[in-house]
This record gives sequence, C-alpha cells and structure tokens, in this order.
Amino acid sequence: MSKGRLEAFSDCIFAVAATLLVLGLHVPGPGSGPLWSQLLANWPAYVTYVISFMTIGIIWVNHHELIGVLQRVDRPILFLNLFLLMTVSLCSFSTAVVSDWILSEREAVVAAALYGGVFALMGLGATAIWAYAVVRRDFVPAYARPERVHASIVRAGAGCLVYLVGSVVALYSVPASLLIYALISIYYVAPVLPKQSRRARVNNPRRPLITIHRSASK
Amino acid sequence: MSKGRLEAFSDCIFAVAATLLVLGLHVPGPGSGPLWSQLLANWPAYVTYVISFMTIGIIWVNHHELIGVLQRVDRPILFLNLFLLMTVSLCSFSTAVVSDWILSEREAVVAAALYGGVFALMGLGATAIWAYAVVRRDFVPAYARPERVHASIVRAGAGCLVYLVGSVVALYSVPASLLIYALISIYYVAPVLPKQSRRARVNNPRRPLITIHRSASK
Amino acid sequence: MSKGRLEAFSDCIFAVAATLLVLGLHVPGPGSGPLWSQLLANWPAYVTYVISFMTIGIIWVNHHELIGVLQRVDRPILFLNLFLLMTVSLCSFSTAVVSDWILSEREAVVAAALYGGVFALMGLGATAIWAYAVVRRDFVPAYARPERVHASIVRAGAGCLVYLVGSVVALYSVPASLLIYALISIYYVAPVLPKQSRRARVNNPRRPLITIHRSASK
Amino acid sequence: MSKGRLEAFSDCIFAVAATLLVLGLHVPGPGSGPLWSQLLANWPAYVTYVISFMTIGIIWVNHHELIGVLQRVDRPILFLNLFLLMTVSLCSFSTAVVSDWILSEREAVVAAALYGGVFALMGLGATAIWAYAVVRRDFVPAYARPERVHASIVRAGAGCLVYLVGSVVALYSVPASLLIYALISIYYVAPVLPKQSRRARVNNPRRPLITIHRSASK
Repeated sequence: MSKGRLEAFSDCIFAVAATLLVLGLHVPGPGSGPLWSQLLANWPAYVTYVISFMTIGIIWVNHHELIGVLQRVDRPILFLNLFLLMTVSLCSFSTAVVSDWILSEREAVVAAALYGGVFALMGLGATAIWAYAVVRRDFVPAYARPERVHASIVRAGAGCLVYLVGSVVALYSVPASLLIYALISIYYVAPVLPKQSRRARVNNPRRPLITIHRSASK
Repeated sequence: MSKGRLEAFSDCIFAVAATLLVLGLHVPGPGSGPLWSQLLANWPAYVTYVISFMTIGIIWVNHHELIGVLQRVDRPILFLNLFLLMTVSLCSFSTAVVSDWILSEREAVVAAALYGGVFALMGLGATAIWAYAVVRRDFVPAYARPERVHASIVRAGAGCLVYLVGSVVALYSVPASLLIYALISIYYVAPVLPKQSRRARVNNPRRPLITIHRSASK
Repeated sequence: MSKGRLEAFSDCIFAVAATLLVLGLHVPGPGSGPLWSQLLANWPAYVTYVISFMTIGIIWVNHHELIGVLQRVDRPILFLNLFLLMTVSLCSFSTAVVSDWILSEREAVVAAALYGGVFALMGLGATAIWAYAVVRRDFVPAYARPERVHASIVRAGAGCLVYLVGSVVALYSVPASLLIYALISIYYVAPVLPKQSRRARVNNPRRPLITIHRSASK
Repeated sequence: MSKGRLEAFSDCIFAVAATLLVLGLHVPGPGSGPLWSQLLANWPAYVTYVISFMTIGIIWVNHHELIGVLQRVDRPILFLNLFLLMTVSLCSFSTAVVSDWILSEREAVVAAALYGGVFALMGLGATAIWAYAVVRRDFVPAYARPERVHASIVRAGAGCLVYLVGSVVALYSVPASLLIYALISIYYVAPVLPKQSRRARVNNPRRPLITIHRSASK
C-alpha cells in the first residue's frame, strides 16, 4: 500500500476543506445597507477564517511530516487517517457557526466551545496516527528513539488538551478562547516530531534509494 | 495510458465529494432559537455525515487497492471509473436529502431508500471495474487465481446487494436501514481483493522495476 | 516547465468542476410537498447531471491523452489550457441553468442554447491546444504524420461545430438538442488523437527513458 | 521536506479556488422574468469571473515556476505559502462582492477597492516567498545572479503596487480599476523570474540527476 495516494487524497481534502472556509464569508447584495458597514460588521468571519485556515494549514504541515516519517502504512492507519480527514472537513461547519454567532451575547459560548471541540478532534486524529505508528515499532524510523518519541506524543496530545481547555475557557470569555486557538496554531509552527541529528542524516535511511535490478547484467 | 492520472483524478473526486458532505451541516443564524438546541436537533445530519464520509472513504481505500492491482487500464476502464465517480459525487445529494427528511414520519422511508440506492450504485460501479478487469485476463496479476478472484467478485457484489436490501428494509424501519449502511462500511474495512501469499511476494511482480536502457553501454 | 504540475492542476479543476455539478441537485426540506414527487419532478436535473458529468469526464480523458502526447509544454499552452479549464468550470453554471429552466415553455430554448454554447467553448479550448501544438512541429511526436494529425484536428473541431449545431437545434426542439449533446459525448469515447502503429511502439519514443549520468564511471 | 507535496497541496487550493468562482454565477429560477434578460443583466459576473480566473491562473503559473526554481523549502516557506494560499482562497469572496455591487452607484467603489486589495495581498504573498528565498542565498540556483534577482523582486513587487493603485483608482472610476486588474494579469503572462541563459542550461543544475547508489557494484 503506497503512501503516495494516501498523501494525494489527504492533500486534496485538506485543500478543499481550507478553501471551503471562504463560503462562510459573504455579504448580502445591494438593498441591505451600505457595503462598507456590512464588510466591517463581518469582522468575526475574517478572524475565524484566518484562525481556521492557519490551523488547517499547520495540521497539514505536520501531517505532511508525519506521513513522511512513517516507514509504511497499513489499513488501520488509513482508517485513522480517514477519521482525521473527517474532522478536518467538519472545520468549515464549526467556523461558519462561530462566525455567525460570536456576537450573540448568550450563544457565543456554545459556538466557541463547538469550535474548540472540532479542533480538539483534529488534534486527536493526528495524535492517534502517530501513537499507533509508535506502538507498531517498525513503522517509525530507527533514529526515533523511544524517549524522544514519547515526548513528541505528549507534545501532540498536549495540543488536543489545550483545545479542550479553550472550549472550557469559552464558557467564561469567548475572546480568550479564540486567542487560545490562535496561539495553539502558532505553537504548532515548531516541529512536533523527533528530528534526526545531522550526523545521522549522512547515513540517511529516509533517502529514496533507487535499487537497480540488473536482469541482464553480464 | 497511465494509471497515475486516473488515480489523481479519482482521488480528487473522492476527496471533493467527501468534503462537500459538510455543506449538509448548517444551522440558521441568530434569531431562530437557542444555538444549543439547534445543534442538538441537527443530529441526523451528523449521523449521516459520518456514515457517508466513512463509506466514501472505504470505497476510496478499496478503489486504491483495485487500481493498484490492475496491470494496465484501457478506455472501457476509464469509463467504468467515470460511472463510479459519478455515483460517488451523487452521495452528497442523497446524504442531504436523508438528513433533511429522516425525522419526517412518512417521507423518511423514501429518503432512506434513496440513500441506500446511491450506495448500491457506488458498489455496482466498483464491482463492474473489477469484473471487467477479470474478464480481460491480462489486466489482473498472475497470482490472482480464478477461484480467489471469483470469491472477490462475489464479495464485492454482495455489498451492492446488501445496500439494496437496506433500501427495502427502509420501508419497514428507517433506523434499521441506517444501521445496515453503517455495518456495510465496517464489513468493507476488511480487504476485498485476493491477496498475494507472502512467498509469492518475494518474487513480487508488482514491484516497480526500473529497467535501465543502456544506449551507450560498451 | 514540467507537464506534471500542469496535469495535477488540470485534473483537480476537472474533478472539482465535475463534483460541483451535484450542487445543482437539491430538494427543499419537509413542508413543501411529498418527497417522492419532488424527487421525480427533479428529473431534468438528473439528466443534465449525467450529460454534464460524462462530458467533463470525456474531455478529461481526451485532455489526458493530449497532454500525454505533447513532447513539451510552453507558456502559450499553459494559457490555452487555462482557457479550457475556465470553460470546464463554467459547466456547472450552464448545467444549473438548464436544469432549472428546461421545463419552462419559452425559456428552455435559451437555457439549452447556453448549455451547448459552453460545451462548444470547451471543445474550442481543447482543439486550440492541439492545433497550437501541431503548428509548433516539435511539440508532437515524430510518429504523428501530418495527414493523420490534420484528421485529428478536424475531428476535434467537428465536436465544437456539432455543439453549436445543437445550440441552434435547441431553438426548434430542446429534447433534440439534449440528445445531440449526449451523442457527442458518446462520439468522443473513441480516441481523437492519431495512434502509433504497433510496430512503431516497439521503438517507442514516448517511453520514459531513464538516462543515467555516470559521473564517476571508470 | 519535499517540494512535491507542497506543490500538490498548492495546486489543489489554486484549482478549488478557481473553480469555486463559478458559484458567483447564478440566475434565479423561473418566475423572476425572462431568462435571456437575466443572463444579460449578469454581465458583471462574467467579466469578474474571467478576470479572477485568469489572475488565479497566472499566479498559479508563476507559483509553479517559483517553486520549481527553489533548491529546497523550509518551514518559513511553507507558512509564507499558506499565507499566499489563504489570499488566493479569499478571491472568490471578493469576486462575488464586486459582481454583486458593481452596478450599485455609490457602493461600487468599495467593492472594486476590496477586489484590488485581495489581489494586492496575493501579489504580496508571492513576492514574500521569492524575497525570503533570495535572502536565504542557498535556496536560489547558482545561475540567479544578484542583479537579475533584484530585478525580479522589483518586478514581482511592482504588481502588488499596481493592484493597490488600481484600488485607489476605483475611488474615481470603477471601470478603469477593472481594466487595470485585467492588464496586470496580462503583464504577468511574461515570466517574472530570472532565466538561465541557453548556454548555462547545457550544464543545467536544475536537471533532475538520478544518482545511483551502487551498494554492491563489483
């Protein structure tokens, strides 16, 4: 089972999910007040568009690295990956809800909690793939030593937890929860997975070796 | 005719079709009752979102394997594949219908039957590609012995049949038919195509051989 | 300039354009009459969905072959290709218009003419790429002898013309024009480009040669 | 970190963003006046559809070349690229706004300025990637001599500036600003990046060298 098509399919879902976010931005046509004030009144939609786009983008970057590190994929990884993609797709729904309801006094709490909940599910999906790969020892490259791998699982899981914390914070302050979601996406800008040392890379096991099968050599 | 672009195009349609399912999830803006109760009342949309996303995902996994096994593709396979993709695309329509109408007492039957009917067409499309490839003997790899191939066609076709059964069951009990659709997607988690034995894989004919053309070799 | 990304981008647009066709299928929620009769009344949408999906699919197959034959691509081809993709994208608009208006007595004519017009533009875009490549002699492989190439341009152009004829026929009979559009897509199932003879293929210039650069060979 | 998946993800977002533009084209169903006059009244939507599609397409072509020239990519480039893709996605929003409001006497100014503003952000994103790559000297190929690279950054940046000028021009004349946007996309048809001389290409450092690792030679 090749990683190539898994990546192509995942890239496409990440890309479509990110692009569909734009459907949450819209202003009614003429006859509903001046355009300028409508565009300004729309600001929650822009804020959540940026937060959601960057979050999907950063999960894509980390997914990219995660799949790149895996030595091979099997059916359970395909299905964990489907779960992750299902939550990524959900993101345009939760983003639309939060941008519609964020200014509503009492309901904003529910919307912000939903928003964080979907992000937490996304984090859970990514963590589950990595945790499964680590349990199946031969899926991770030799240089990924146990103590570093554990740290990376903790780091990946921490993100989910903080999203849940953000959902709870939303009960008290909606802007604070949005800030937390934005900060997490900055936190994940730094790489999550364990790195190969420069020395190890010289004898890099990840380098695509072109093995030549000489059927007719001398 | 290369398999690469066939896969790229198919992956993209599967991915877009799966992501468009999210358009079926939406709640009206403020002024239409509390958000919390609207989100809860939306539960049929979540159930059908998960069933449809997983079904598309699993058909994608099996399509992935099916195309991977084919030794080559010709124009009829391209057109059978187009038929399959057309039914996959239809899925977001039937999902929207079923999630809108599932709570309507008398109409739910029609919606659930439509839902199962589209899934049955998807199964039919996938089965047709595999059946055509088997009839053109040189499209399937040598290790696919007739008796195992027949079993796999039966297994693939069985799925279509059970979807049709689910459509009929919908006439009596809508929840039972949804349960059947969900169970089929779990049934297809297991691989459908015949497997190569471990021994055969040592002399694996599927391994991409890089043939070197030495134009200037001594 | 690599053909790989041109194909990836084009495949994605073809795929998204084909999948977006499904947005033209929708029935209102409960409260607007029985579901069964609404689904039946929707039949023009299904007919045009199938015609449009198959037309996009067949243009994709021919595009696939066309790009595969090209020995290289340059900026004008990229821009001709953008024009083709722009018309492919338009297809979901013309399909929605025709499925909404086909039952309207006087307006159906306009809708069917628009439908054929967009198809004719698609055909024009594909023909233009092929004609440009033929004019730049070194873009087509050596086996494409002038007389066969001319035949293929005539054949490709003929499609555009027949779409235009269909648009005119729509003024007299809308069903007849739909039938013509469906028949054209069947006509294009057969390959348009000149074929290599079996003998020529033995010394196939299209086969991807892996040239080995031996920097350190004895 | 491979360029392959960066390109696949970017291609997909460019493609979806371009295809979603079609959602801005729609006419109401029967009962709202003759179809013919509605289609004609829709002309601003067609003009902006063509301008936006071509602009996205041309930025895609240049992005294609830009990534192709880069010797490698790192995390900052991934994030600058995410910023670019976020602005490309926004384009279907600004296009819908401008096509809805362009005929509204006083508001057209705001819409045209927004339209140009989003294009300027797209140009800024592309320029930022190229400027960053030049600052990190080893990201650009050896043949890209400083003076030519600087000219290309100026040329890329000039586009952003002219988009901003177009936004200001919109305050005085909306058609003039649309003309400017259309002209810029024609300006960018010519390549932006420095070219290798024909002689240099003979010892082309961009040619994908297949290095053969002979583990068991002799």
